[in-house]
Amino acid sequence: MPRYALLVEYDGRPFAGWQRQADQPSVQGAIEAALAKLEPRDHTIAAAGRTDAGVHARGQVAHCDMQKDWDPFRLSEALNYHLKPAPVAILRAEPVSDDWHARFSATERRYLFRLLTRRAPATLETGQVWRVNHALDVEAMREGAAHLLGQHDFTTFRSVMCQALSPVKTMDDIQIETHDGLAGREIRFALRARSFLHNQVRSIVGTLERVGAGSWSPDRVREALDARDRAACGPVCPPHGLYLMGVEYPENPFADN
Amino acid sequence: MPRYALLVEYDGRPFAGWQRQADQPSVQGAIEAALAKLEPRDHTIAAAGRTDAGVHARGQVAHCDMQKDWDPFRLSEALNYHLKPAPVAILRAEPVSDDWHARFSATERRYLFRLLTRRAPATLETGQVWRVNHALDVEAMREGAAHLLGQHDFTTFRSVMCQALSPVKTMDDIQIETHDGLAGREIRFALRARSFLHNQVRSIVGTLERVGAGSWSPDRVREALDARDRAACGPVCPPHGLYLMGVEYPENPFADN
Repeated sequence: MPRYALLVEYDGRPFAGWQRQADQPSVQGAIEAALAKLEPRDHTIAAAGRTDAGVHARGQVAHCDMQKDWDPFRLSEALNYHLKPAPVAILRAEPVSDDWHARFSATERRYLFRLLTRRAPATLETGQVWRVNHALDVEAMREGAAHLLGQHDFTTFRSVMCQALSPVKTMDDIQIETHDGLAGREIRFALRARSFLHNQVRSIVGTLERVGAGSWSPDRVREALDARDRAACGPVCPPHGLYLMGVEYPENPFADN
Repeated sequence: MPRYALLVEYDGRPFAGWQRQADQPSVQGAIEAALAKLEPRDHTIAAAGRTDAGVHARGQVAHCDMQKDWDPFRLSEALNYHLKPAPVAILRAEPVSDDWHARFSATERRYLFRLLTRRAPATLETGQVWRVNHALDVEAMREGAAHLLGQHDFTTFRSVMCQALSPVKTMDDIQIETHDGLAGREIRFALRARSFLHNQVRSIVGTLERVGAGSWSPDRVREALDARDRAACGPVCPPHGLYLMGVEYPENPFADN
């Protein structure tokens, strides 16, 4: 069966998350339903990141197995046609080898978290940023984030529901950048790692927000990490500022664009 | 009566436009209803730009007259409280003199138009960009736009519904910038003038899109302008990529931020 890698963008707001569920809309379910319009049968697709309810993607990667050979451009166009009006778009489709796997072949995931600091509620970005109504000390957050770089046992920053075999992960990068608007400031957290634990980004950003607000010292992030105890984590922040931005592979099917 | 300038952000999608209407939701109507919660009576506010249905604002400016003296910060907070859940936010409120007028005192308006060129439909930006499914020649569009700079009779680029006394306006700047994404490219048109005619930005962007697509030569923009004939205009583009970004005043009440 020919296998195709799909580069997927979606607005997470109407979905209960990536994973197919019996009675709630999911991104996986929407794409599988579109595939069934092309080849009528049950489809099961795999993705690099199983994003939670309300989490968005600019560069999710999935793969599907088809019975017939599809022209990749026509496959993406046909899927987009059948996905309407769901806010899910197939940006690219590319043929890959049978042993290429969207999840298991991935060597890096990149996430972005958008935090808007201002008194007024969000309007154009409702459900697409986390709005907090106080200013944050970005230098303190950067200092706190530095403790998390490298290989660590991230038990503190992991959901109790996490199914990963090991809590040891390597955080390759956390960049924190600011974008000032007419009122308030957007703070963007860009995280990069081979893989992430369940709720790891939201646990980290929620904790760093406490540092930025002055409730936590930057060094307390180190202490929380060393505690290897979920109870030592700061509050987990809401999902709606989180975006899966991109995934890397040794053989990246979308690299030529 | 103390007068306050309001810096307003909104998502235009649910509104029939800025102007109050008898039986449809409007941004003006939403803010006036919030004002009536603070001082129960009829309110009439004025704005720098009377945006059309579906048009957004990052920096609309309006003014309101109140019976009592309000602390500006408390006024903005109270309005935001009563505006919920409408996607309208008062970013700032500042006291101004009785003869300061949001519309008539304005000396410059800045508009942004976001155009997304890609095959796949928009997801996260649905209703916030105009998506076209073909590539555009940006250099040709810049060449076409250059013909519009300076003082001209803009009859060609003006809605037949326009109520302005004169079609002569001065276009101070048209910047066209590109932002490349994982698939496709966003093209941003930033326009600056003392004031605009009705549908002027959408008439210009719709015409420049024809230039970018190769259907029009850049010089045809000059010919269309010189024709002073609405029929010579390219297609008017949809409203949902348009944003009122900011307004300037000799005494800018928000300048200290």
